[in-house]
Amino acid sequence: MEYRIEKDTMGDVKVPADKYWGAQTERSRNNFKIGAEASMPLEIVHGFAYLKKAAAHTNYELGALSQEKRDLISKVCDEILDNQHNDQFPLVIWQTGSGTQSNMNVNEVVSNRAQIIAGKTYDDEKIVHPNDDVNKSQSSNDTFPTGMHIACYKMVIETTIPGIEKLRDTLKEKSKAFEKVVKIGRTHLMDATPLTIGQEFSGYVSQLDHGLKALKNTLDHLSEIALGGTAVGTGINTPDGYSELVAKKIAEFSGLPFRTAENKFEALAAHDAIVESHGALKQIAVSLNKIGNDIRLLASGPRSGIGEIIIPANEPGSSIMPGKVNPTQAEALTMVCAQVIGNDVAITVGGTQGHYELNVFKPLMAANFLQSARLIGDACVSFNDNCAVGIEPNYERIKEHLDNSLMLVTALNTKIGYEKAAKIAKTAHENGTRLKEEAINLGFLTAEEFDEWVKPEDMIGSLKKQ
Amino acid sequence: MEYRIEKDTMGDVKVPADKYWGAQTERSRNNFKIGAEASMPLEIVHGFAYLKKAAAHTNYELGALSQEKRDLISKVCDEILDNQHNDQFPLVIWQTGSGTQSNMNVNEVVSNRAQIIAGKTYDDEKIVHPNDDVNKSQSSNDTFPTGMHIACYKMVIETTIPGIEKLRDTLKEKSKAFEKVVKIGRTHLMDATPLTIGQEFSGYVSQLDHGLKALKNTLDHLSEIALGGTAVGTGINTPDGYSELVAKKIAEFSGLPFRTAENKFEALAAHDAIVESHGALKQIAVSLNKIGNDIRLLASGPRSGIGEIIIPANEPGSSIMPGKVNPTQAEALTMVCAQVIGNDVAITVGGTQGHYELNVFKPLMAANFLQSARLIGDACVSFNDNCAVGIEPNYERIKEHLDNSLMLVTALNTKIGYEKAAKIAKTAHENGTRLKEEAINLGFLTAEEFDEWVKPEDMIGSLKKQ
Amino acid sequence: MEYRIEKDTMGDVKVPADKYWGAQTERSRNNFKIGAEASMPLEIVHGFAYLKKAAAHTNYELGALSQEKRDLISKVCDEILDNQHNDQFPLVIWQTGSGTQSNMNVNEVVSNRAQIIAGKTYDDEKIVHPNDDVNKSQSSNDTFPTGMHIACYKMVIETTIPGIEKLRDTLKEKSKAFEKVVKIGRTHLMDATPLTIGQEFSGYVSQLDHGLKALKNTLDHLSEIALGGTAVGTGINTPDGYSELVAKKIAEFSGLPFRTAENKFEALAAHDAIVESHGALKQIAVSLNKIGNDIRLLASGPRSGIGEIIIPANEPGSSIMPGKVNPTQAEALTMVCAQVIGNDVAITVGGTQGHYELNVFKPLMAANFLQSARLIGDACVSFNDNCAVGIEPNYERIKEHLDNSLMLVTALNTKIGYEKAAKIAKTAHENGTRLKEEAINLGFLTAEEFDEWVKPEDMIGSLKKQ
Amino acid sequence: MEYRIEKDTMGDVKVPADKYWGAQTERSRNNFKIGAEASMPLEIVHGFAYLKKAAAHTNYELGALSQEKRDLISKVCDEILDNQHNDQFPLVIWQTGSGTQSNMNVNEVVSNRAQIIAGKTYDDEKIVHPNDDVNKSQSSNDTFPTGMHIACYKMVIETTIPGIEKLRDTLKEKSKAFEKVVKIGRTHLMDATPLTIGQEFSGYVSQLDHGLKALKNTLDHLSEIALGGTAVGTGINTPDGYSELVAKKIAEFSGLPFRTAENKFEALAAHDAIVESHGALKQIAVSLNKIGNDIRLLASGPRSGIGEIIIPANEPGSSIMPGKVNPTQAEALTMVCAQVIGNDVAITVGGTQGHYELNVFKPLMAANFLQSARLIGDACVSFNDNCAVGIEPNYERIKEHLDNSLMLVTALNTKIGYEKAAKIAKTAHENGTRLKEEAINLGFLTAEEFDEWVKPEDMIGSLKKQ
Repeated sequence: MEYRIEKDTMGDVKVPADKYWGAQTERSRNNFKIGAEASMPLEIVHGFAYLKKAAAHTNYELGALSQEKRDLISKVCDEILDNQHNDQFPLVIWQTGSGTQSNMNVNEVVSNRAQIIAGKTYDDEKIVHPNDDVNKSQSSNDTFPTGMHIACYKMVIETTIPGIEKLRDTLKEKSKAFEKVVKIGRTHLMDATPLTIGQEFSGYVSQLDHGLKALKNTLDHLSEIALGGTAVGTGINTPDGYSELVAKKIAEFSGLPFRTAENKFEALAAHDAIVESHGALKQIAVSLNKIGNDIRLLASGPRSGIGEIIIPANEPGSSIMPGKVNPTQAEALTMVCAQVIGNDVAITVGGTQGHYELNVFKPLMAANFLQSARLIGDACVSFNDNCAVGIEPNYERIKEHLDNSLMLVTALNTKIGYEKAAKIAKTAHENGTRLKEEAINLGFLTAEEFDEWVKPEDMIGSLKKQ
Repeated sequence: MEYRIEKDTMGDVKVPADKYWGAQTERSRNNFKIGAEASMPLEIVHGFAYLKKAAAHTNYELGALSQEKRDLISKVCDEILDNQHNDQFPLVIWQTGSGTQSNMNVNEVVSNRAQIIAGKTYDDEKIVHPNDDVNKSQSSNDTFPTGMHIACYKMVIETTIPGIEKLRDTLKEKSKAFEKVVKIGRTHLMDATPLTIGQEFSGYVSQLDHGLKALKNTLDHLSEIALGGTAVGTGINTPDGYSELVAKKIAEFSGLPFRTAENKFEALAAHDAIVESHGALKQIAVSLNKIGNDIRLLASGPRSGIGEIIIPANEPGSSIMPGKVNPTQAEALTMVCAQVIGNDVAITVGGTQGHYELNVFKPLMAANFLQSARLIGDACVSFNDNCAVGIEPNYERIKEHLDNSLMLVTALNTKIGYEKAAKIAKTAHENGTRLKEEAINLGFLTAEEFDEWVKPEDMIGSLKKQ
Repeated sequence: MEYRIEKDTMGDVKVPADKYWGAQTERSRNNFKIGAEASMPLEIVHGFAYLKKAAAHTNYELGALSQEKRDLISKVCDEILDNQHNDQFPLVIWQTGSGTQSNMNVNEVVSNRAQIIAGKTYDDEKIVHPNDDVNKSQSSNDTFPTGMHIACYKMVIETTIPGIEKLRDTLKEKSKAFEKVVKIGRTHLMDATPLTIGQEFSGYVSQLDHGLKALKNTLDHLSEIALGGTAVGTGINTPDGYSELVAKKIAEFSGLPFRTAENKFEALAAHDAIVESHGALKQIAVSLNKIGNDIRLLASGPRSGIGEIIIPANEPGSSIMPGKVNPTQAEALTMVCAQVIGNDVAITVGGTQGHYELNVFKPLMAANFLQSARLIGDACVSFNDNCAVGIEPNYERIKEHLDNSLMLVTALNTKIGYEKAAKIAKTAHENGTRLKEEAINLGFLTAEEFDEWVKPEDMIGSLKKQ
Repeated sequence: MEYRIEKDTMGDVKVPADKYWGAQTERSRNNFKIGAEASMPLEIVHGFAYLKKAAAHTNYELGALSQEKRDLISKVCDEILDNQHNDQFPLVIWQTGSGTQSNMNVNEVVSNRAQIIAGKTYDDEKIVHPNDDVNKSQSSNDTFPTGMHIACYKMVIETTIPGIEKLRDTLKEKSKAFEKVVKIGRTHLMDATPLTIGQEFSGYVSQLDHGLKALKNTLDHLSEIALGGTAVGTGINTPDGYSELVAKKIAEFSGLPFRTAENKFEALAAHDAIVESHGALKQIAVSLNKIGNDIRLLASGPRSGIGEIIIPANEPGSSIMPGKVNPTQAEALTMVCAQVIGNDVAITVGGTQGHYELNVFKPLMAANFLQSARLIGDACVSFNDNCAVGIEPNYERIKEHLDNSLMLVTALNTKIGYEKAAKIAKTAHENGTRLKEEAINLGFLTAEEFDEWVKPEDMIGSLKKQ
């Protein structure tokens, strides 16, 4: 392997000759051999590219950086966003908790890549200095949380919400399509009064609608960016007007409504916005777990389960049991839910541990958030495309269950009272008979009354009432 | 112990003669000897009292209940709300997951107490039947979640939010009072550039403001009530117009803005509203943990800690070390935060486990929520009254720390560049000297330049900028 | 309310005249109005009574306390253990994180009660001083963790383990009783190859056996007690030989194998023993959740569920649906599991937060542990007595499911290969027919071969093989 | 991209021409686009390679497989273990919860690679059939948990335990090296009685020793393997003696003490062994968090923190603050701890959700376990090599703190009583003076008595006592 020598304030470091990164990146590579290489999410790097470019433009406009430097920095940032340098960011999540080393990784790559673009060699004096120029008016302490918010916000907008909405829309269509399919309800896993599949699915739609609303409620906090706070939140070494302008630039470059944080001290020392938005992701995981569980229970069988709905058979289900088909999409979905619930605790623990002016669990919090946001979005699309769109009622099974039900007796409460109704149901249960037969035998009502009063289709309310 | 005989659809049960409850309550007492007696929170019982009264009025107005029955039910509910029957609710959290037995406990107490008020004996026919009258147009499946939302919403409004606001206001006052007290900042627990105590505390205020906003954002979902969904969400056995009217009555009686849930199927089968609001409580716990931790670190000492603030000495701190004073309020506060974080997981797990038309982790979810909401409110008040209001700066210590700081060198970045500035700081650190001395020795700047450029009071930005 | 004046090193405090407690208890009552009064578990107080008595005896034997004082202290401790003073411990969990105030509560009650026993008045000089005598050779920092270990160990031994063992024994009996009842197996909730109920239940037994073993593995750590470490673990102010002797006394008085901690610094500054043992409780909660879930799924119906087992009907299941019976014991059990899982996180968070020589999340950790340990024990007994002992197979249903199964085809893998077997199963599924019919139609085997090769009773292995 | 056609029981699938995998792998790739490609840990694939080889040998020895097939299967497994086919396993964690598709991925790669080794083409009949030969006497339901246990056990033995032991050994050396360095103790973050650094560090050693013991206690359960249970635990389609022999082969090939699970029904339907061992990993995370936190607090400064120890400066700490050095290794370590705590919840949630004969959260549980086990091992080594080995006392600072301490007064308790001692400490605190001065002023003792009684070096007990 060929090397060149890079230096920082601590001295010389050997760096792979074919990489743009510098001394501090290499130190971090050597000092933090924890988990897989390059585990720091690329979305964070892209978040940095947006903010470095925005800072260069802002510094230029406020008279703190030359046009040449601005253009060089911008050009490299654009290359990074164009995925041309994905192999230049080898660092791991498990580094310094401020993400300083990832900030310096970007600073160094921009500096050295600019050097080459400008036709210089690595040994020439740096055209753009990693600290004095690329990092101008910045600190790791405000850039990392800014990069984190950009990355997380983008993921939520581009992956999470569209994924959930896609599934929600399908469930809504199914709810409409099956609005008249009356089936037995179940409470405590036990037979209960009837409802329609449409009504059952409308509950799922409502869960996801509430979840989306909850998630969107949190985005305002997540749209606040720390940039301009620099070292401890005071904005030391920033020109006047910097915070507002740099936020505006980031919003412009990213196309997302970022704005400068109301309070920079909070924005560095705490990451409650991450805690807040991930709380909503966790809520959605709770909802999706319910939905996925219900779908697999309803589809269970084919002969000895509930079997009231049919889901697509996408693959052979078993390596030993021939012809078996399993609710695999629901399994992937509920595993994702468990992961998100675990991630929420990791984020929570990280969030509690800020000290004084800085929370140093930033990479942990960002990485867990990004994983959750991506997994929910991806899993919703996968579950939608490979399962939800294909759900169909098993009419025969539904009818069989409904006809057998003892809980239709509930309709008699208002006619003959709870106690007599209970007696009918219990007798039918003991004798393995039907309600009507026992209702008449017990002398509580006539066959005609039974037929008039006990109609499943009258027991489902009206959808409009909901 | 004296008994009387009560009966339900399963037969006779012996019940303590001096209690109003009936057969089903007694069965539950005997069948669920898990944890302490009467652990079902009284707030839930009060939630039931509101809704039973509202249901009686609604049933009356819609022609489904007589005026006499309405008045008897209402009267007992008012007595319950007046805490006259607190010893009539002996059931535990760890019962059926729908809370059916607590619903029946209320139904039975209302029925039997009405019997006595009406001058009847227990052996006479029930004037108001527990199922047919007190529970009319209701099911446990919609009453328990309704009682749960009433109880949780009330607790948040009456205890949690006022407690947080009280602490927030005090911290805001402190932030204002100390807005000019410049002190050393700390990042990574290490000395950093200066800020004011006012700025430091403004971060705490911002955390709590964001937390309050997040909590309030969730209240809309929590204000939805399930009543009217009855057994499975279809509203079987309810008169037309019932859902909206009963919600209006509950809002009127409780003075809180409850409204009927958009979708009753969700409201029975999932408790995402509880998950959502508790997520915000957990976020606030994260914030409070940061704040409590900072306060105790800043107050640590008295001789060998940080010691930059002084907190009230409320009690002897040690049974063995004479004269010791400890940050006990911060300890209680952070223990509460840990509890809330744990409760969040319990609620999350409960929330994932709804099956079909019903989630049967209701009492667990409600009890954990109520504990968290109360503890946060109480702990904020306790921390406020016994600690926060008495916080004062330790000016001598603050000055000593500030004068010694090496990180003031940061102000020189824009003058002489990061690398030379680093050299100054490192040399001073190695030699145990001050920055100015080494800056001059190294020949990077003059004494006059140092004095002009390195002023802590110029390094804190302007509060207006924040 | 009548008061008397008590004093401590900070001055005078008014205390209820009819209580034995002193100034510091009263200060704590006033300073920590968080959650319900007297929430500090009584088990902790009893743990203190054991250790205070043991310390008095040890101090006497080592020449550091008079016989008179030893006897007075011992007598009051015995009264406390005899539940004569339960109303003397009004403090809450949410106090100082070292539990100092609860230690002083015990010291004060012992001191003042001794005063009265000795025929003195409150105004006379204390016969046994709360700090100098009752707390002799002790600190809150070693007494609280000692009391905590005594309380937790006792609860595990007396409540948790016997409860789990009771349920395990019942499940083992059921496993034996139903060892020949062949039923359809289910994987992914879908029909699979057969097994016996006995085999299915043997899995539950194995889970609980492994859980009990895991729990017992942790008891060695939990049996270590901190007493003798005093203020910071060095044992300042203890006589020679104290640690070992006092541990021996505690073991003797409590009848449990406590021994002095190998390392007192760990025993004060960390509570990994609590984390460890509660980890095992959490594992058991995971097992119980699986078991409870399976039981309710298997018992679901009665008409439209799985219905392969019958569980006892203990109470009317619904306030609106007459005759409904629900798996309520499984619901209580699984709610307990969710609570224990949440408590584990609270304990974990508390456990991470020791600083220097002391962890100050002690009351939180102890309270959560005790709740989990009690709930698991109680819930196992309740589930056992009211559900597990009454479980019976529903033979008719089991046979119906088995006869219909398509997965019996698996037995043909070794005869005709996976692919042909799959073809048979798929064809039968599509046509709604039986395997035999299609196997013959497809020409893969004869009727005789089918009857010989596809026998459910040959597909269950031998129990001995397991 | 070039393709070839592969088929399974559902029909034809296009597969990349340069890959060995078959139809089912490709279906899974298309059906589960969730998160990053190939996220299924390679350790799991290697676990499969061990077990497929062991199964082939066992089947051969029991007469169920030809020698030729055995040798072909073995050869490919050896190639996989030699990392020659790492790009052949593209599947994700978020697939079917039984891991069937990863089992089939291995089956298909072995089958097709064997085909090529044997000089056949893809179109020829398979020499070793993926289901009938490679998967012979197996099911996904017993292979995946077996592969999972092999992977997890190996990681714990090869990475986790050695990493922890390395750090433990260093801390033990430090404890010995600094056993006579007396320093101030701190409880509640406040000054307390003295101890030595050696004693303080001995607490960390004790935590890790207890943690290692706890982890090793769990390995017995983890060494149980499910293989031989096949589809539902009954061992259908396995030859007599298979379970024991195949476990013996796995133990032989892997060099680790695996043995056949006592109960196969538990081994498929629950993964309590994973829950149990990860519980121990979580306990260790709790310990490491305490240790990492203490180290960074003790090293804080350099001018305005605690500063009693000096840790290595490995990299420039700040992009904006020149000369800053941070406790970055402690930050990486504590972030890892937070991740492990979160992973524990994900695993717990997955563990609770087995249904009937199968838990379908296997890939989730395995992936989280492997991440935790690796991160703990790696982070311990990193923290050890880059921080712990270089820890040195800051003698000057230690002496300054000790000399100033007020808590040395504790030594006077046994001489003059707690109350007079408290008076001395409080007076010195108020006046900003030293204890000796005030002790004499107050007339409680003479200068000579003070000098004799208040010696920090006499207040630390004897290490032997610990």
